[in-house]
Formats: sequence, C-alpha cells, structure tokens
Amino acid sequence: MQKPSLPKGTRDFGPIQMARRNFILNTIKDTFQLFGYQQIETPAMENLSTLTGKYGDEGDQLLFKILNSGDFLKKVNSEDIASGAAATLPKVAEKGLRYDLTVPFARFVVMNRNELTFPFKRFQIQPVWRADRPQKGRYREFYQCDADVVGTDSLVCEAEIILMIRNVFAKLGLSNYDIKVNNRKILTGISEAIGEAGKEGSLCVAIDKLDKIGWQKVKEELGERGFASHSVDKLEPLVQLKTDLKGKIAFLKDFLATSEVGLKGVSELEEMLDILDQMGANLEHVDFDIMLARGLSYYTGAIFEVKVNGVSIGSVSGGGRYDNLTGVFGLSGVSGVGFSFGVDRLYDVLEELDLFPEESLKGTTLLLTHFDQKGFRYALNVLNQFRNAGIKAEIYPDVVKAKKQFDFANKKGIPFVGICGDNEIMTETLALKNLETGNQENLKVEEVISLLKGN
Amino acid sequence: MQKPSLPKGTRDFGPIQMARRNFILNTIKDTFQLFGYQQIETPAMENLSTLTGKYGDEGDQLLFKILNSGDFLKKVNSEDIASGAAATLPKVAEKGLRYDLTVPFARFVVMNRNELTFPFKRFQIQPVWRADRPQKGRYREFYQCDADVVGTDSLVCEAEIILMIRNVFAKLGLSNYDIKVNNRKILTGISEAIGEAGKEGSLCVAIDKLDKIGWQKVKEELGERGFASHSVDKLEPLVQLKTDLKGKIAFLKDFLATSEVGLKGVSELEEMLDILDQMGANLEHVDFDIMLARGLSYYTGAIFEVKVNGVSIGSVSGGGRYDNLTGVFGLSGVSGVGFSFGVDRLYDVLEELDLFPEESLKGTTLLLTHFDQKGFRYALNVLNQFRNAGIKAEIYPDVVKAKKQFDFANKKGIPFVGICGDNEIMTETLALKNLETGNQENLKVEEVISLLKGN
Repeated sequence: MQKPSLPKGTRDFGPIQMARRNFILNTIKDTFQLFGYQQIETPAMENLSTLTGKYGDEGDQLLFKILNSGDFLKKVNSEDIASGAAATLPKVAEKGLRYDLTVPFARFVVMNRNELTFPFKRFQIQPVWRADRPQKGRYREFYQCDADVVGTDSLVCEAEIILMIRNVFAKLGLSNYDIKVNNRKILTGISEAIGEAGKEGSLCVAIDKLDKIGWQKVKEELGERGFASHSVDKLEPLVQLKTDLKGKIAFLKDFLATSEVGLKGVSELEEMLDILDQMGANLEHVDFDIMLARGLSYYTGAIFEVKVNGVSIGSVSGGGRYDNLTGVFGLSGVSGVGFSFGVDRLYDVLEELDLFPEESLKGTTLLLTHFDQKGFRYALNVLNQFRNAGIKAEIYPDVVKAKKQFDFANKKGIPFVGICGDNEIMTETLALKNLETGNQENLKVEEVISLLKGN
Repeated sequence: MQKPSLPKGTRDFGPIQMARRNFILNTIKDTFQLFGYQQIETPAMENLSTLTGKYGDEGDQLLFKILNSGDFLKKVNSEDIASGAAATLPKVAEKGLRYDLTVPFARFVVMNRNELTFPFKRFQIQPVWRADRPQKGRYREFYQCDADVVGTDSLVCEAEIILMIRNVFAKLGLSNYDIKVNNRKILTGISEAIGEAGKEGSLCVAIDKLDKIGWQKVKEELGERGFASHSVDKLEPLVQLKTDLKGKIAFLKDFLATSEVGLKGVSELEEMLDILDQMGANLEHVDFDIMLARGLSYYTGAIFEVKVNGVSIGSVSGGGRYDNLTGVFGLSGVSGVGFSFGVDRLYDVLEELDLFPEESLKGTTLLLTHFDQKGFRYALNVLNQFRNAGIKAEIYPDVVKAKKQFDFANKKGIPFVGICGDNEIMTETLALKNLETGNQENLKVEEVISLLKGN
C-alpha cells in the first residue's frame, strides 16, 4: 500500500490556514472593489507560445510544461532525443502552467480589447507555478494577488495605490510599515546626470542591492558593470542624502537639471503627491526612496515597495507603472500601473505579529450535544431553528459519550455547546455552555438565538 | 507578432462572469458553513502515484501530466521511444494535475489523520483538469465544489445533504427541481432478489441509462450483460411501479424480503426520512427513485442526484455514501458521505432562467465626473468621503469629454454619476444622476452618502 505524499514545494491548506488566508484575501478584495476594481480569472494552462520569452531565459526554465495528451511521442524520433531536451520540448509539450498573473492579463486585454471598457481596472487572485528549488518561504505553487489599471496615464491611479495599501493594512491591523515610492524616470535621469546615459538597467540592478550589500559593494559592482569611477563618485551625495521629502525633491531638481526625463520623473512624483493632498490624504507611511529600483525592467514610471518593520519578512507588496503591457501580443499604446500583495508573506507577517483576529477563525458557533437517543432526537428537533436564524450550528451526529462530543467542540474551536438532557427536554430549554468561560445556564431556544446572533 | 489564443477547452472569466460565479459560489459556501463544514485547499499538482489507478484506464488517459523540470530526457533512451508513450511516461513525468477533488481529499485525510477532528466536515472549491475532447459545456479546466463528512455512519449527514441542497437552491431562486434519492444497498438487494446476486455493478450501469434509452433497450443490454431473461422480467414490476414514497417502501419490503442487504437499504432510507421529520423538515423536492443508480461504483449507501426541471441541462448536483474513501492510501475504516454542485451547469441554469439577481453584478456604485481641471480637483476632494462610508466609488481618472465619462459609467454598469461642475463647486454639492431613471438632483455629499448607503 503506497504512503501518499505531496509534490515538493506544494502545500495543503487545512481549515485554520484557509480561514486565515480568506481573512487576508477578503480584506484585499473588499478594498479593490471599494476602489472600482473588477475581478477576472484566467486558466491555469496557457499556450507555451504565450508564456515563453516573457520572463527571460531563467523564467523559461522555471515554467512547468504540460505533456501533450495521447501519444506524446508521436512527433519524436531518436535524433530529437540525441539533440536534447530543449530541441525535443516543442514536440512533446504545447502548454504550460501560468508563471505570473501579468502575462495572462496582457493576453486577456489583447483578446478582449473590443469588449473591455477602458480605463480597465482589474484584480486577479489565483495560484501561479514556478519550478524553483523549494526552500523556506518559497513554494512551487503560490497565490498572487494583482490589481492593475490599463488604458490611462492618470497619476490618480498611482495615488490610489497608496490609499489601497493603507486601507488594506489598516484593516489587517498593521501599523508599522513603509510604502517606499520612487519613479523609474528619476533613475534614468540619474544615469544621464552622472554621464552614463542608457545604463539605467545596470544601475538599477546594482542599486537594488544597496539594502543588502551596502554602498561599498554596490560601487564595486558598478565598476565591474563598466561605470567610470568619476560617474560612480557623482552618485555619492545621492546615496548619502539625509533629508525629508521636500528636501529630496529640491535636491533632485538641481541634480537632474540637465536631464529632461529625470525632471519629468520628479514632476510625476510631485503630481502624485499633489493628488493625494487634493484627496485629503496625508503622507503617513509614504517614504520617497530615490534609490528604490525594483528588479523588473518593464517599469517606466512610478515604482512602489512595501516593507513591514520589525519582522524578518521581506517586502509584502510592490508594483509600478509600465508603458507597454501588451506590445508583445501586438497591441501597442496600452500603458498601465499595477501592484500586488504577497499573500504568503502577509500571512507570515500576521502570524509573527499575532494579528489574526479571532473572528477570522470562527466556524461553527453552536454544537448540540446529547446523552441518548431521546436527547439526540430533541437536538435534531431544535437544530434548524438556529440555522434558520443564520447561526452556524451543528449536531454531533452519533450518540456517543458526552466527553467525546465536548472534545470535538474544543478541537474544532466551537465556542458554545447546547446540551440536550432529560431536564432540558422537559423544560423545553438548552443547557448552554460557554466553553471559554465554563459558564452554563438553561435558556429557551429563542433566548439562545438572540444571545448567539451577534457571534 | 503573435496573435494570442487560449488552449482548447479553457476559458477566461471576465468581470460579469466572475460576479455571477461568485454569487453562486458564495451562496454555496455560506450554506456549507451554516452546516458546520470547513474549507480546505489542496495543490493543483499531485504526484502521479497519487492519481493513477484511481479513475480507471480512461481516467488515467485523461490526466494532464507535467513534464519533469530540467533535463526531462535524462532517463530516456531510444529503446524507450521505440516502446512508446506509455513506457516512456514514468521517465519524463512524475506529477499530474488534479482530476477531481475526491482523491486529493482522501490523500489529505490520510496524511493529516492525526491532526484532524473526526467526524471531519470539509468543503473544497477548486478547479480540476481533464484532457477530455472539448465540446459544448465540457471544458478541460472547470471548477468542482465538493462537501464531504468522513468518520461517521450517521444518517444525519444524508438528511443534511438534502437540507443543504434546498437551502442553496432557495437562495439561488430555483424552485422547480427534484432531489432524487436512492440507496445503493437497495440496488444490491434487487440483484439478489431477481436471482443475479453480485451483478449489481452491471445492473447499475444498465439501469443508469433508463432515462436516456428506455426500458426496452435496458432489457436488451441486461441480456447482453448475461442476465437471464426470467431475472430481467422480475425487474418489470419495479420499473413500472407508480406509487408514492410510502407505497414504494411497502413494495420494496416485500420485493426484497429475501435480501438482508436490500432490507438494510430500505431501513437506512426510512431512518433518513425519519431524521428529516424530526428536524421539522418536509419532503418537498425529494423523490425516491428506486432506479437511480449513478455511475460511480464506490457508493455503498445513499445516493443523490438533482435535476432542475424545464431546462436543457443535466443533473446539477449529486453524491452519495462510500464505505472506504481512504483504503487505497492504506487507511481503512474511514467511511463518509459527500455531494457536489456542478458550478458550470448551475451557471447555465441561472442564465437560462434569467435568475441572476442584479445585486450580484453590482460593482462600483458611484462615478465622479468633471468637465475641467477645477472639477477634477473638486471630485478628488470629495471622493474619499464616499469610500470612507463604504460606498464603492471612483473618479474618471482623466479630464476628457463628459460623454466619454458617461459612456464609461454605462458600460461598466455604474448606476449613479456625481457630476462636478462649476455650480456644484460653488454650492458644495454634487449633481447626482441616476443613470437608470435619468433623474438628476443637486445634493450635499452627506445627502448623497445616505442615499447611496443602501445600494
């Protein structure tokens, strides 16, 4: 008899984990909808032609491919085998599993461009799959949770991303965190201003590591990447800059005076801040971080990254504006801005800070227990009244020892037990026991209903 | 430039479809939770050793297999290629996509048996994948929605399945449907009573077609399957039986007098009906169908099937009791009972009957529109007040012609538009237009909030 197991890097979610995840996901969903975002879903399987070439060579390696059904070898000959897996792949697999939610969304927009109403605000919460080496906190199947607006350049979208993040975090009970913001155009401007125009890609990759490896090592890496040392030196005042938001903007207007795109980045940032101001929103948690780069090269405007302070977990949310989401599928001119929440990381943060509210775990409110057939039948008789009143209630389905029934309630986290004994049958009551306090009192069914209704 | 497409048999769900699907799924979820069921999720990928051999040869063919990552050919040689796909498969694929929710649930129960509280009531709503030939109404990726209780023989579970189905259907607005019930033991008893003991498998397969091909053809098929014609003749009074529930039970007690298991089936049915009676529930929609077989051979007790009358769609829900869910994974003695809703079919039924409530489609309630920068800024200024009051509101993010903004509201199904013109700015009001009635009036923000709060 085989002993069952799970594939490496995958997980089951039991009842408690699901309740907690749903607490996070419902919170995020409510916020997205409050801001006018609409949910879509795309299939787990995409054609490999849709997926490959979108995530770099490494990404292509990490795609899970699905074996063609039926005789998957019918186009394969021994020469293919000899030339290796890469040459054989297209003959045995046409489909792959979704790697992220961005590429499927771009495909969706292109295929439905005539039916969609632009600006189109969509959110999407679905699992993605990556054939990464599994390790602590890194899974081969995990949920992504993305929101994007496409079809507008309005900086209202950027401002609202900040508002949505704060809205979600407030509802999750998180208060100590930073929303780092920057603008990719500022980074482009900086590379122009230091005399290394066009090298913002390398600049970003190196600067992205500033937090992790420090300025000295970043300098070395920039040297290795071909930056002249007098260019790198010019970065120094920026890296060392210690001033507030207004001070940073003033500094940059001067530093980027020769770079049109750089100044455009600063003015976009100022406009976003002005919109927040117009909306009556303060700048709490907002941190303008000139060195924030984010790895993804397709960002062209604002970029965001959120870190919760005082926990061991990396960034829990991030995003930015991109100029050309759908170009790769033949539809140009669709710009957008989006962000996502890292659900697994938020889960870990809330667990580390013990922030999951008890209500989020609430399943059944009331278990009806009994000592014998007579009590069992009495319990059956009153059960539906609770459910009709919207109270989550169940009966222990077998006539077994009371201890076993109470153990069941305790293990399942059911807070109230309604005992159906002879005395209760006679007086048409329930002995309602609060398992947390141990209090017990005899009440009519209607009294129990009004007591539990708030629970 | 490539033109993107979807893999055969898969679908995108746009905003309207998602809202409708969520209406169905949330209704089902609420009912499951009202009855004490807890949600779990299992990974999309399972080891092939978990999946193969569980769904028959045809099922094994229909499993989507995932190509091993990295050099998937490393164990393959030209001899393998010569021996064909079946021989090569184990060397190139270790994992497959979930084919249903039952086998992963059985695996979950076995792997977590020491942590779970029995009786364990779980529900699970996730997609499954089958490499079936796609056709109208049949997809390669579709959602299943299952609820099962394991670890108890109590017929309360069966009675509650009937209550849950009625609860869900009432909330979906469905009133013309039948819940067909039977008991597999009765079918076993019948095969004993007609002198064909042990042939209930063939009997079920043939009888399952009664609705589709009629009694005459079923008789022929039974003959082909080796049933003696005098045995088949004994079935005749059963097939022709026209009487009510009590009449059927009385008939069967007589017909099955020589079959212990058959009488057990009848008494289980009676006990289930008695429990419903104890619970104060009537038998509306319940139809005892002695000929109901359902194809799946693992049922051992009650069986259920639900059909909506007056629509072209087949059964929308079904289930039954099985004695040995987890035996195949080495854990015996775990009996259970479960049922599922066919989400795609329910969607089609509600669409055909035009039963999706308008509220289920409600996205954004209010769009703020404007004519110029001044109005745009005023709109930004009032926007957050609506969201803080929990009203789903958005601003058209660009300063464009009013017509374009109104078109946007209409296409997105937003019922109210708050116009921010010079007059409104001066009087600190909004011109609130109801797009359905065309009515328009000037109101203070607080007045608009209290008006829209119910929406």
